[in-house]
Amino acid sequence: MTQSVAVVGAGLIGRAWAVVFARAGHEIRLYDADPTVLQSARGAIAEGLEVMVAEGLLDNAAEVLARVKIDADMTTALRDVVYVQECGPEDLAIKRRLLVEIEQYVSTSTVLASSTSGIPASQFGCDLRHPERCLVAHPVNPPSLVPLVEVVPAPTTDQSCVDATLQLMTKVGQQPILVRQETQGFVLNRLQGALLNEALRLYRDGVVSVDDLDRTMRFGLGLRWAFMGPLETIDLNAPAGIKDYGQRYGPLYRDIDAQRQEPAPWDNDLLDQLQVERRQLLPIADLDARQQWRDRRLMALRRHLLESS
Amino acid sequence: MTQSVAVVGAGLIGRAWAVVFARAGHEIRLYDADPTVLQSARGAIAEGLEVMVAEGLLDNAAEVLARVKIDADMTTALRDVVYVQECGPEDLAIKRRLLVEIEQYVSTSTVLASSTSGIPASQFGCDLRHPERCLVAHPVNPPSLVPLVEVVPAPTTDQSCVDATLQLMTKVGQQPILVRQETQGFVLNRLQGALLNEALRLYRDGVVSVDDLDRTMRFGLGLRWAFMGPLETIDLNAPAGIKDYGQRYGPLYRDIDAQRQEPAPWDNDLLDQLQVERRQLLPIADLDARQQWRDRRLMALRRHLLESS
Repeated sequence: MTQSVAVVGAGLIGRAWAVVFARAGHEIRLYDADPTVLQSARGAIAEGLEVMVAEGLLDNAAEVLARVKIDADMTTALRDVVYVQECGPEDLAIKRRLLVEIEQYVSTSTVLASSTSGIPASQFGCDLRHPERCLVAHPVNPPSLVPLVEVVPAPTTDQSCVDATLQLMTKVGQQPILVRQETQGFVLNRLQGALLNEALRLYRDGVVSVDDLDRTMRFGLGLRWAFMGPLETIDLNAPAGIKDYGQRYGPLYRDIDAQRQEPAPWDNDLLDQLQVERRQLLPIADLDARQQWRDRRLMALRRHLLESS
Repeated sequence: MTQSVAVVGAGLIGRAWAVVFARAGHEIRLYDADPTVLQSARGAIAEGLEVMVAEGLLDNAAEVLARVKIDADMTTALRDVVYVQECGPEDLAIKRRLLVEIEQYVSTSTVLASSTSGIPASQFGCDLRHPERCLVAHPVNPPSLVPLVEVVPAPTTDQSCVDATLQLMTKVGQQPILVRQETQGFVLNRLQGALLNEALRLYRDGVVSVDDLDRTMRFGLGLRWAFMGPLETIDLNAPAGIKDYGQRYGPLYRDIDAQRQEPAPWDNDLLDQLQVERRQLLPIADLDARQQWRDRRLMALRRHLLESS
């Protein structure tokens, strides 16, 4: 029998996690301290599943939904689960209290994983009786469509807890990576930040428009990165592999880096300019419709990548 | 009648440019100073077209091939062409001489565009009688599969020459962006460099493995970037758009940036480590086969993006 897991917090991320576990065959207990949030969760999950069926990503919505057990009582929600995915508010004090509360109802071997995008486990797990079973499993929103999960142990986390989390994530069809140190922004947001910092400088300096910047990624860099990543890309772009590439192009990238020893420009003046230019491309009233378009495109791209891999 | 264009230099990039123009209906004259290179060009182009047919990206290979006129005489190759795509060696002295030679055989209104990835037009075009018709049109390799073209005028380039190049690129199905200043690395390689610099630091510091770094892009960041770009991504990730996003996450990205005020680590020791880790993932003997896999995946992704846009 596939083991039960629990998701604590039934917001956007918690509901998407419920879909991830349920579609992989797990009984999933969904808990939230707020009864209103919990009450609307089943309907919201059902709607999301229908869109996935329509986009060809799922064919058994009713079965998946049947595995989601909504439970307003933490005692029963957490009984005998092997894994808890915590999706509470992004606030250190709240997370510390919530984890201690969760620990009361689970066995000593249960893994406690947090969806936090920025708080390290060594901070929110320090009040636990067993901090060694606590770590971060940071998803990309929504985890039901974007498979990457950053698994970030604290220095005190047991290797067995790390291994169990990596295995569970792989088993449910996610793509876990191991972040070996509690680095600010983990790996994904550090990579995103490095690229955005340079993008903002190029825009600020008048080198390129907002639209042309995005087109550089969509029609250039992003094509290979969507199925290979940046290091395999450069490894295949020189006759003798990545070292050969680095010897050819490293000096250019080092030069560019040396020119950028200045704080990244995330000030309000620049954000105002960006906002104006984005609103010319997309009126604020259309933001919602465009987000729905994005999710459909994301689903189609996922399907394409799964089919051609 | 669609106007003729010329490609000077029949290496990998020149041949891919010939495909771009010919499949859009242009008669294309392909010239190379080396008769051996020129002689093998038609066969190599024909092979490339067959792969595109097999991958569903083309259905009239014979017609496209018929529009490619191989010409070993620069006088006739350049007669009456409206546009020249120069694809000579990446060497300033050679390019300066080559452009002067080309200018002898074209009319005063012909655009002279270079495929260079790094030499600004203000340097290689300075010996021309009419430097105002000279600019960079930098493709991604191969332009027949990756549509982005960076159009980079010199301060002396006529606006009409810029406009004509942007229009021609759009007409033949490429995606041109305008780089408004002759920045080192233009836009694409600056963005790539910023991300690679951070990737190398994370790897050097032991935060993440080579494979997990690539998976972060493939299964996380790269999915949206492949069809939206990074700025539209963040614009859709906050309730009130890009300014709202910047106010929420700008401080994080600025922090990360502040931690990185040190030279980018492209030294040989690190390249050796990267090489060892990549070779565990992909033996050097398999590099060629993997490059062919990459090209097939790239074609399938292109087809998917064209069909779902």
